[in-house]
Amino acid sequence: MIADDIWADVQRIRKEAPLVHNITNYVVMNTTANALLAIGASPVMAHALEEVEEMAGMAAALVVNIGTLSSHWIEAMARAMWKAKQCGIPVVLDPVGAGATRLRTDTVRLLVGKTPPTIIRGNASEIRALDDEEARTKGVDSTQASEESLAAARALSRRYGSVVCVSGAVDLIVQGDVLIRVANGHPLMPRVTGLGCTATALIGAFAAVNPSPLKATAHAMAVMGITGEIAAEEAQGPGALQVRFIDALHGLKETDISKRLKWTEG
Amino acid sequence: MIADDIWADVQRIRKEAPLVHNITNYVVMNTTANALLAIGASPVMAHALEEVEEMAGMAAALVVNIGTLSSHWIEAMARAMWKAKQCGIPVVLDPVGAGATRLRTDTVRLLVGKTPPTIIRGNASEIRALDDEEARTKGVDSTQASEESLAAARALSRRYGSVVCVSGAVDLIVQGDVLIRVANGHPLMPRVTGLGCTATALIGAFAAVNPSPLKATAHAMAVMGITGEIAAEEAQGPGALQVRFIDALHGLKETDISKRLKWTEG
Amino acid sequence: MIADDIWADVQRIRKEAPLVHNITNYVVMNTTANALLAIGASPVMAHALEEVEEMAGMAAALVVNIGTLSSHWIEAMARAMWKAKQCGIPVVLDPVGAGATRLRTDTVRLLVGKTPPTIIRGNASEIRALDDEEARTKGVDSTQASEESLAAARALSRRYGSVVCVSGAVDLIVQGDVLIRVANGHPLMPRVTGLGCTATALIGAFAAVNPSPLKATAHAMAVMGITGEIAAEEAQGPGALQVRFIDALHGLKETDISKRLKWTEG
Repeated sequence: MIADDIWADVQRIRKEAPLVHNITNYVVMNTTANALLAIGASPVMAHALEEVEEMAGMAAALVVNIGTLSSHWIEAMARAMWKAKQCGIPVVLDPVGAGATRLRTDTVRLLVGKTPPTIIRGNASEIRALDDEEARTKGVDSTQASEESLAAARALSRRYGSVVCVSGAVDLIVQGDVLIRVANGHPLMPRVTGLGCTATALIGAFAAVNPSPLKATAHAMAVMGITGEIAAEEAQGPGALQVRFIDALHGLKETDISKRLKWTEG
Repeated sequence: MIADDIWADVQRIRKEAPLVHNITNYVVMNTTANALLAIGASPVMAHALEEVEEMAGMAAALVVNIGTLSSHWIEAMARAMWKAKQCGIPVVLDPVGAGATRLRTDTVRLLVGKTPPTIIRGNASEIRALDDEEARTKGVDSTQASEESLAAARALSRRYGSVVCVSGAVDLIVQGDVLIRVANGHPLMPRVTGLGCTATALIGAFAAVNPSPLKATAHAMAVMGITGEIAAEEAQGPGALQVRFIDALHGLKETDISKRLKWTEG
Repeated sequence: MIADDIWADVQRIRKEAPLVHNITNYVVMNTTANALLAIGASPVMAHALEEVEEMAGMAAALVVNIGTLSSHWIEAMARAMWKAKQCGIPVVLDPVGAGATRLRTDTVRLLVGKTPPTIIRGNASEIRALDDEEARTKGVDSTQASEESLAAARALSRRYGSVVCVSGAVDLIVQGDVLIRVANGHPLMPRVTGLGCTATALIGAFAAVNPSPLKATAHAMAVMGITGEIAAEEAQGPGALQVRFIDALHGLKETDISKRLKWTEG
């Protein structure tokens, strides 16, 4: 039944080809665009202050990612998020490197404070860095068990009303007291740069067609993990995995989801 | 005979390795550089105001692409185009997203008005957006039949003296009253991000060795489509297609062109 | 015995996962990050003036690459290099395009003058452009035999106390009077964009774990060349080579090094 719901989202994305507006980092622009195309969405990348509001106004979802932040991008991110909120489209934020440098932590807090995102997806370190009580936990490691960051995710979700996703070997998707765990995925996935950013972009595509941000996020994370498992089966290493991931996403079938889904609630 | 002319261009590119100066978007920089290397050209990416004129002055062709536009890149694009024109090298413009936002439409009109490009390549929406009478047609869709944009292409070509290429399932290459149709390609190609940008870059390589902008453009589009067909034959999806496209371009043979070419004039 | 030393470095990188801070160009950000992950390092890309010093302060090595230079990145590069030097971590500089435009030549000289890098890696043209006596040799060609640039490499090394690596069919690694030649590699490698930049990034990873900059540089170049040979064996072209290179780096074995190493000293 959950697998049916996930598959229904995939079919809607393929049918409607929702426009997903990305303000993202240089490292992943190509792979993010290809992943969105592979799932059936229409990606657009636009970051200029002069056009982000107009672009967000046409989009079905906005994805903001601070992975290679420049100071002059921050105002564009803030304006696009505000415009998207006004237009009633989902805003997905990826706080890449929050907690690693003051610029990143401060920027994410600024963005989140001004326009609470519909969905926030990060690794355990990043999510903890956004929670004030944990602010002294600095570093760029993503090795913390995602479970330990559950409290931070719940606190963030309550404060901003956002769905919060902590990705890891088991992904946690939190909305207030509600918790979904998705245990799909493959150990080789973290050896490919930007698959976390791809997850965030796919959440944007799912949120564009599913009115429940909680379900959209969990469905996207399930599709990420399942696609990674399929791609890893024939991949000799992370290079092939990156390529096969796109092919597996493009060729995803209903039975891939129903047979592989590892989903628990509560 | 046309296949012979196309092959002669490929051989010249491989022999001369013309320097193609790209001012292009973040999404495609890697794939564009690899495509230019695969056909035998020498790519360089340079966008700083302080060096674009010097770089354009050394190049055999200039390719300008506004896919991830920033306001501070516009002056660099304008100066590089002007310098290239002064040096007598071909200028190829890719108006990515023209018609989608005012910034993009205005920027392209500014650039084209200041230095009419030798060649303009876009999808149907983009080409129509550049034609004033069609200015109200906004959107980011590229699904319009390219045939419908033939009038816009002709008008643009007459106004600026440029060769205009409308790419689609059938590519239209227009110079005043002259029209060439190239019907090569594969339906999977639009699922790979930036293959349109690759086409524009390859046009730059062909224009660097062929003094006829019309022929250079049509030859490049034929090579794009044929290479896409070869790459798609063994590709399981768009991920593999992107990789195999580069390999097929690198390994392109004379018979690939003579056996596959779908070219009509008039 | 040298193969043993190289393998010890690879094992240390895999075990310690050193954080390599990259300020690099748009073309190669994705492939550089993937190469660093594949060898076992932890890449981070950060270029904002507001965070480069903080990030460099956490890193085990800093890699600076001017491939798609913007004027506002120069100050960030300079500050990061200075901070890295103060922190005692190795600084690796890739002077992409030095000699091609005044901006690039001047920028590299400025950076090198302010903070002499631990290691400089470039092709023959770039290294010669950094040596004052050769300043008039302009161009973007990398076809000069690397041997001809040995004098320039020695002069640079003496002036700045840096290890200088001139990459080519045979890589020269110079420190004062000491010279190591590494003859591994494959002719298809220059047809993949950014493999030189990948070499520079890998030097950063090796320098993070090996206190001898000379050995770190030569070890990294040997691993580059050997990995390229393995990847090229099954690659149909440069597209596949780029993907397989990452897989081969990830799967590198001790015997790959001991059987293939082509290393001469003096």
